Amino acid sequence: MVPRQTSRDLRNESRFEVLRALFELGPSTRQEIARHTRLSTATVATLVTEFLSEGVLRIAALERRTVGRPYERLAIDPDRGRIVGVDVAETYVAATLFDIALTPISHGEVTLDEHENSQAYVVDGIVRAVEAAVGTGAGEADRILGVGVSMPGQVSPGAGVSVFAPNWDWHEVKIEELLAQGLRIPVYVDNPLKAVALSEMWFGVGRVADSMAVVNLGTGVGAGIAIDGALIRGANNNAGEWGHTLLQLDGRQCRCGRRGCVEAYLGVHGIETSLAEIDKDHPALRQPLQRDFIDAVATGLAAGDPVLAELARRTAHYLAAALGDLVTLLDIPYITLTGWTSTALAEWLVPAVRAELPDHVLPGSLPDLTVEVSRVPGNPVALGMAAFALEHFLGRLGLPSPASAPIARRRTRPQS
Amino acid sequence: MVPRQTSRDLRNESRFEVLRALFELGPSTRQEIARHTRLSTATVATLVTEFLSEGVLRIAALERRTVGRPYERLAIDPDRGRIVGVDVAETYVAATLFDIALTPISHGEVTLDEHENSQAYVVDGIVRAVEAAVGTGAGEADRILGVGVSMPGQVSPGAGVSVFAPNWDWHEVKIEELLAQGLRIPVYVDNPLKAVALSEMWFGVGRVADSMAVVNLGTGVGAGIAIDGALIRGANNNAGEWGHTLLQLDGRQCRCGRRGCVEAYLGVHGIETSLAEIDKDHPALRQPLQRDFIDAVATGLAAGDPVLAELARRTAHYLAAALGDLVTLLDIPYITLTGWTSTALAEWLVPAVRAELPDHVLPGSLPDLTVEVSRVPGNPVALGMAAFALEHFLGRLGLPSPASAPIARRRTRPQS
Ligand SMILES: [Zn+2]
Ligand SMILES: [Zn+2]
Repeated sequence: MVPRQTSRDLRNESRFEVLRALFELGPSTRQEIARHTRLSTATVATLVTEFLSEGVLRIAALERRTVGRPYERLAIDPDRGRIVGVDVAETYVAATLFDIALTPISHGEVTLDEHENSQAYVVDGIVRAVEAAVGTGAGEADRILGVGVSMPGQVSPGAGVSVFAPNWDWHEVKIEELLAQGLRIPVYVDNPLKAVALSEMWFGVGRVADSMAVVNLGTGVGAGIAIDGALIRGANNNAGEWGHTLLQLDGRQCRCGRRGCVEAYLGVHGIETSLAEIDKDHPALRQPLQRDFIDAVATGLAAGDPVLAELARRTAHYLAAALGDLVTLLDIPYITLTGWTSTALAEWLVPAVRAELPDHVLPGSLPDLTVEVSRVPGNPVALGMAAFALEHFLGRLGLPSPASAPIARRRTRPQS
Repeated sequence: MVPRQTSRDLRNESRFEVLRALFELGPSTRQEIARHTRLSTATVATLVTEFLSEGVLRIAALERRTVGRPYERLAIDPDRGRIVGVDVAETYVAATLFDIALTPISHGEVTLDEHENSQAYVVDGIVRAVEAAVGTGAGEADRILGVGVSMPGQVSPGAGVSVFAPNWDWHEVKIEELLAQGLRIPVYVDNPLKAVALSEMWFGVGRVADSMAVVNLGTGVGAGIAIDGALIRGANNNAGEWGHTLLQLDGRQCRCGRRGCVEAYLGVHGIETSLAEIDKDHPALRQPLQRDFIDAVATGLAAGDPVLAELARRTAHYLAAALGDLVTLLDIPYITLTGWTSTALAEWLVPAVRAELPDHVLPGSLPDLTVEVSRVPGNPVALGMAAFALEHFLGRLGLPSPASAPIARRRTRPQS
């Protein structure tokens, strides 16, 4: 059945609307928030009162008027607490400490040995990265309101986390519980594609567009998708696996098991394969680490290497075709590119993709189509995960505490 | 910016919710409608009063109680008026007359010569099909509240209709205005993929699922997509052009200009091409009409023709791969097949597709994945267009009439 919103959902949604308005507008009056969100002034007033009493908002300024009481200009109180966003990849864990206005304060990073990915090893790496980001200063650890952790795999809020990376053997791991034991703070876990989508919606093109795809190009590739202002999650939270849609039926073997996936052409291994097809002895192929390979390609392109120019041409052709599919299927007007391949090779890929894209898209979807490198600052995965954790913190505000909720009574067995 | 709902939108949405509840539940009390829609009983009471005064609902029964006033059981009053749904294809126009409970009353069909598709010719064909459906009996024509017309192309509510079929040379044609002159009834025009999606949402799997793709297989192929209860339209109303996403980079030439599109393998011409690759002299290829070709394939498969068995095998392989992309990208749990290729060949395609689909889909999206032939009765395009026209009629109810609206004043020039 169509899931219907309860009044609790609507109340939470209105809370996020108020907060997003303040992220976008900066310090604002209740009237400005109501106008921006199109919530009623009564609803805004109620939520603002709640936020003020919880310390999430503060009165940033009083605006005098010729008659009547001055307007209060409200702002998020960054000092209400801290949020940590964590990006877990196959080779590293990167954690960022944010204030609750989502301004980054400090970072921590831990390198993972990609050949040793037991649960205990990864959980320990996450805890160490969070500790490194939080540091030992001035009781910061006690002020943390929530931690958002992105895991590179299929994350199902109910069933746990499954990671299908080559060296990971995780199936339905209850990572939230494992982490909550190590961190003793509420932990929210999600998939990195959802995190990059949320950070783009809150801090990137979401400020000018309500439908977008954030295309991540790195070891793996995928797309975070928002349509009409809503993040697309899918029935099992697996939406966005654009990297495992087809570019070439029965083409190159992909690590997911399927043949011909986009990732087998646009993931780093795919780009290496393309280069080997052009010149299997090219020196860039001798780089043992993926990131160094991509950097070597960028350096060689800048130096005018003709073999790498051909590699860039082929890669742009694959990318234009694969982005064309996203636009053709969903008529999405805004595509942003993120991930380190995007950053390193944008100069060569983006102009070629823009030139070829019209060949892959129906004319009606072309007029306002924009492709650009994402302008979300910092690590968009960590930022998006912090935004999710903040949403969850707001969702918990004002809810009855577990002790006061009549759950225990319902849990007692019926007498027989 | 994120489009925000005005109270007008919310009011209209609540109206459709009440109506959809009555479509799903049959005659219901206000309490049952409120429970089903999760609207407040006050909102339901207000809307029901409005609908009763407009004659859209009637009191179908009174239910006695031991104390208090009897409950009124409400139903859509089918006799409030008529709605026409029209399916315009390259070779025919099919029109169905419905009562406003969307029960079909009568049909009309006009054959189009696919080599003569001037605007005047097509408009005349649509008018004749509507007249044939409405008939001459008992003033039916005067009772029509709206007409919904699906056009085979890119339909932009603002810019008009562009059709890119081989023999159509339509660009931004204002078909609504042309038709309104011929029919003198409010006309709503949309794309057939949106119509099949809406009919599936209202009368098909929408009753058990809130996310689905309705895959149409005929001359052209495409998908109507609904996610979390919302029809996906895209920025230019072009979402769903799955037929022009890639199956094979740089593969078969498609009529859209791109190479390797799904339609070049699964549209009727694509299936003919596949058969010619296996046996260019196969007798089925001598059928001049597409529909007869598909019927000949179905007949031959039933008779055990081994060449056609190989054709079915390849076609199922293409279909499984292309449906796999829809599931992988959007994590959609429900796919229904519609269109005459689906109907004619389902017996051979559906079991093979179900068997192969796990090879094309990430494990997390598989557990509840369902693929079946659509059970929406009749012509789903005409039904969906009638549902859109009904929505538009409901949207007009209770709005100020143009004469009473203060538009004329705003249009006067400022004095200079
Ligand atoms: Zn793959
Ligand atoms: Zn095409």
